[in-house]
Parts: sequence; structure tokens; C-alpha cells
Amino acid sequence: MRISELSRSTGVPVPTIKYYVREGLLPPGELTSRNQAIYDETHERRLRLIRALLDVGGLKVAAIAEVLRAVDDPARPMHKVLGAVADQLGTARNEDDDAESVAAGAAVAELIARRGWSAHESDPAARDLARALAAMERVGHGAFRGLLDDYAEAAELVARADLGYVDRRVAVDDLVESVVIGTVLGAAVFNAMRRLAHVDASARLFGQDTAADAERKAAD
Amino acid sequence: MRISELSRSTGVPVPTIKYYVREGLLPPGELTSRNQAIYDETHERRLRLIRALLDVGGLKVAAIAEVLRAVDDPARPMHKVLGAVADQLGTARNEDDDAESVAAGAAVAELIARRGWSAHESDPAARDLARALAAMERVGHGAFRGLLDDYAEAAELVARADLGYVDRRVAVDDLVESVVIGTVLGAAVFNAMRRLAHVDASARLFGQDTAADAERKAAD
Repeated sequence: MRISELSRSTGVPVPTIKYYVREGLLPPGELTSRNQAIYDETHERRLRLIRALLDVGGLKVAAIAEVLRAVDDPARPMHKVLGAVADQLGTARNEDDDAESVAAGAAVAELIARRGWSAHESDPAARDLARALAAMERVGHGAFRGLLDDYAEAAELVARADLGYVDRRVAVDDLVESVVIGTVLGAAVFNAMRRLAHVDASARLFGQDTAADAERKAAD
Repeated sequence: MRISELSRSTGVPVPTIKYYVREGLLPPGELTSRNQAIYDETHERRLRLIRALLDVGGLKVAAIAEVLRAVDDPARPMHKVLGAVADQLGTARNEDDDAESVAAGAAVAELIARRGWSAHESDPAARDLARALAAMERVGHGAFRGLLDDYAEAAELVARADLGYVDRRVAVDDLVESVVIGTVLGAAVFNAMRRLAHVDASARLFGQDTAADAERKAAD
């Protein structure tokens, strides 16, 4: 199909498609003349993936380029791809070395040992976790650390579900893509789900007028 | 203290502090002369909260202003504050009305009914959840919907832990702030935790060399 048809079928404007090609997110179409290229359903699929990572996953274009490079590298073992994706989801900042950061790092190392996780405190996810805990400590919420094992249990539940999903698709050639989608979009799903569970829990704990609110909202 | 001392004690540059005051995130200091204002520990505390929401929570300045307005409004009931925070955590975009969106919205409504949640499909969190599911459907992963109840169970576990934490602090005057911190920073904690659980699960499923990787990383 031509670029205009690709644009129509995916809802992505033509200049944006050209931008993705320039940035290496989308392979170029096959040139049929000097000024014309044709695209096929692999481009369509890739465009949909890019938009999902961008719009729902909240990744930046540079991070998506990095993730897609890992996806497209046939020599890269699965857990390396997962690692690359996890890194892009992270904040990729250097941690501070104040007392709160050191204590938070130790708490994360203890958690990994306690749960028996095959992970290391130097993993980007572990560093981000330590950063979040240190930030809580700094605003006077060090006690939040008491919730870590509840959080860990919930995370294990989600990770088991995610990997089970990937495992069921193990024969399919889009396994790597599945992992990427599950990791990035799964985070969006869980975040929304957690907020929804909060609405429920806080309505029970604090509020009476939630049903009325909801109806008012629905009527808007 | 003077603005320069406030800057030193919080690590936030003076021009940034002034910017937060202009944007209404931070109350102005008390004027002691035409060109000088003094600040106290409430400013210090508020600045730390702003930085945590910004750096770790990933909220934008405008979203933080909205959240703090809810925090500072004494007339606002707790579950309204929680709702305001949840809204800012969301993507605040209009949903599409294609077949995937309609189906995803129905799946979310069913989930809410099945779990018996005091929530409504028109809540921002429910809409974001539907958006994420629709995006998955569009990239060929409608089957992910089979994981919804595992995700819901994990979200309930986290929400119970969060609200339990808030409940224990119910006598403290910073209850509202606790809720905000728990909601925003708790999401950062859980996301990092989920990625860490993925590292563990995928090492078990796919990889052998994770320990070696970790050591190499640690040695960097």
C-alpha cells in the first residue's frame, strides 16, 4: 500500500510516519520509483505497536527506538530483550548517595534476598525502587517500607500472570513483541487497575456519595 | 530562613523555588522587607513533596498544582482528594469510539461488577484501563484480557496495603498528604517492583546468565 493508505489504516499522519522512518522506528517502505514507496502489513503492525508504546505506555520516541532495536535483534536472548525494555521503563537517573539512598538500597537488597528473587540490587528496576523508597523517606514516609512485602506479593502475582501469558504464546513468532507489549502496556493496565481499586477502597473507608458522584459523572 | 537557606536545605535552586511560588505550588514566604521574604519548615516540607511528585512520581508541574490545590482545600472530603490525585495520574485523553474501545469499556464494566468494586466505568481510572486494553487489542493482544482477574487481585492487595497505611496514620494531621504520597510514589514503587519480579521470572524461564550479568553490571 502507499503511505497515504498506511496513514488511513492506522490513523497516523503521513509526516509522522516519515518521522518514524527517519528515527529508525519504522523500516522504510520498498521503493517502486524515485518518489514512491510501498508498505505492507508489517509496517501497519509496527506502527500500531509504536503508537501503543507511545500513547498508552508513555515511552518517549528515543526509548521506543531502543526497545525496537532489542526486539529486532535476532541474536539477542529473550531475557536481554526484557532487560532492555525494563531499562527504558526506568528513570535512568543516577541515584543520590545520601543517608536515605543508602538505607533504601539496603532495604531493596534485603527484599531481594528475602523473596529469593533472581535479581540484583544493581538492576535498573532495583535502583528505581530504591530511589522511590528514598524519596518517601525524605518526605517523612519511611514507614511505607512496612508495605514492601505486600507490594512484592502483588508484583509476583502480576509477573507470574505476565510470564504465563508469554509462555502460552511460546510457539508464536511474535514472542518478543508479546513480551514488550506485556511489559509496557501491562504497566499501564496495572496502574489504572490500582487506581480503580483505590477508588473502591477509599469509598468504603471515607466516602458515602461515590455512587451519586458516579452517576453525575456519567450524566456529564 | 532566607530563600538561599531554603535552597541549600532542600537542594532546589533559588530560581526554581521562585518559579514554584509563581505557579502556585509553594506559598510565598513572609515578607520582612521590600525585597526579602522568610520561609519556614512548612515550605521545606512542601518543596520536598513537590520534588518527590516531580522526580519519582513523574507528575508535571500543572498536575502537581492541581493535586496540591486538593490537598490544601480543608473543605474537600478525603475521597475527593484521592479522586483528584487519581485524575492527575491518568492520561486525561478522550477515548476513541472504535470497536476495540467499546469492547474494552464493556470488559472493564464487567470486571468492576465481578469484583464488586465501588467504582464506576466512567471513573478516569476505569477509562484509562479501557484505553490500555483497547491498545492491546489493536496490536493483536486481546487475549491479555484473560489476565484481568490476576491483575485485579494484585491491585486489591496493593490497595488494601495502601489504605491500611493511611488508616494507621489517621490521627496525624498530614493524612491528606500521606494519601497523595502513597498514591503517586506508591505507583513508582509498584512499577519498579513489578519490573524486578519480571527480571526474576524471566531469568527462571529464559536465561541462565543473569547472576553473571548482575556481577558485570555491579563491577561497572
